[in-house]
Amino acid sequence: MEQEQNQQKLVPAVERAAGILDIVATAKRYLTVSELARETALPKSTVHNLCSTLVQLGLLIRRPDQTYLLGPHLLRWSNAFDRQTDVAAEFAALWDQRDIPHEAVVSLGIPEKGEIVFIAARQSAGGHRFSVRPGLRLPAPFVAAGQAVLAHASDYEVRRLFADGYPKPLTDRSPGTLAELLATLADIRKRDYTIEEEQCQAGITSLGAVVLNSLNRPLAAVMISVPAELFSGAVREELAEVLLDITRSLSRRMGADLDNRRG
Amino acid sequence: MEQEQNQQKLVPAVERAAGILDIVATAKRYLTVSELARETALPKSTVHNLCSTLVQLGLLIRRPDQTYLLGPHLLRWSNAFDRQTDVAAEFAALWDQRDIPHEAVVSLGIPEKGEIVFIAARQSAGGHRFSVRPGLRLPAPFVAAGQAVLAHASDYEVRRLFADGYPKPLTDRSPGTLAELLATLADIRKRDYTIEEEQCQAGITSLGAVVLNSLNRPLAAVMISVPAELFSGAVREELAEVLLDITRSLSRRMGADLDNRRG
Repeated sequence: MEQEQNQQKLVPAVERAAGILDIVATAKRYLTVSELARETALPKSTVHNLCSTLVQLGLLIRRPDQTYLLGPHLLRWSNAFDRQTDVAAEFAALWDQRDIPHEAVVSLGIPEKGEIVFIAARQSAGGHRFSVRPGLRLPAPFVAAGQAVLAHASDYEVRRLFADGYPKPLTDRSPGTLAELLATLADIRKRDYTIEEEQCQAGITSLGAVVLNSLNRPLAAVMISVPAELFSGAVREELAEVLLDITRSLSRRMGADLDNRRG
Repeated sequence: MEQEQNQQKLVPAVERAAGILDIVATAKRYLTVSELARETALPKSTVHNLCSTLVQLGLLIRRPDQTYLLGPHLLRWSNAFDRQTDVAAEFAALWDQRDIPHEAVVSLGIPEKGEIVFIAARQSAGGHRFSVRPGLRLPAPFVAAGQAVLAHASDYEVRRLFADGYPKPLTDRSPGTLAELLATLADIRKRDYTIEEEQCQAGITSLGAVVLNSLNRPLAAVMISVPAELFSGAVREELAEVLLDITRSLSRRMGADLDNRRG
């Protein structure tokens, strides 16, 4: 058994060590070698050697009562991950491998207080009437990317965000008051994405969805905008599929745990 | 070689895998298997198997150009580390194994804007005139723990912190103006710890030093306070040694990299 390697030539000791770290990371209390051996279905001596190695590497800490918790060396790696991983660069890399459908503009925005600041955009080959330049700020309540982010906050948090004043509507279809916005958000929370029809700019319909970080909190939002007259049930389905595919992929890349997402 | 285990029975594959993650975490650019093999002095096939395993576990990502960067699964562990590790609990655990010298009070404070909020304290068996209850807030410029934190900021940051007003001095020895504070901090920056003599409370001398987080930034500060008349060159040396021992140990525990500290 010990000497076997599976077809992909995975290294068993590394898989087991990562498995132990996963168990320690998710356990509700601190575990002993015996308990870890039971959880992993590995011999106690194997688990003991793995734990000793992980302690020596600073990846586990042995407590005085012989239980284990995660060690600080993990933070070096996660800080380096943060330095190496930039949501804008990942967004750009994803689009380099894809075609943008229809006359769409796909943009990436970061929430900042009650606004969305756009930091990247890609356009389809065709002409378009909606342009998103990096640095553009729009009030979150009136733009699909912003609504998608706001839908992740509670009504209490949204009220507090606009405690100093609600922004001036951009079109006659924008949610004109905080109460109207809260009703819109309640509706959005039933879906995985937002549809915003001419609330930000006349003649433009946009879909928006969030990119989650490793705490499953919104880090950014992706928006796909098309001329309103092109928008139909079929286009909507196609764009929503692209949007959710992109945002799920970005979320995973940023460390979100989409499989264990709460409600 | 492959079958050898050293006296401590460390698991070679796990050490090697961690070594690869360390190299990828600190490299200035993305590396290939060949480059990683050169850096680790391991056979290319060994490095290839380790990298494939790490990719499969989400600990590395293989880029289209066959170089590697760190993977998002690391964030699960570091988030769990943050949940499990609490500087106040670590502070308490350290003191359970130690005696507090002289008539000292040892306290742990967290910086919050221009103040220090004390969250834990331990006292020696003897009587004491200075008490620190959890929740106590003191202006950072007048208290050793605060001065230790402020000394890590630039003059520009300190000026900005007090842009809305400088706090009212607590004793006639407190630095009375922002200019006096900046002169005090310039002096403190030459040492590893702060000495604050009756600037916070008449009759009390305190030493302060910071606890660093995994980004080597101040997360908290530890302060040792003694009656001023007990303070002498010898007591100072003894207290400073205890203080630096405690803060270094807490910093390492919180993930600071004291060996590679800049400046």
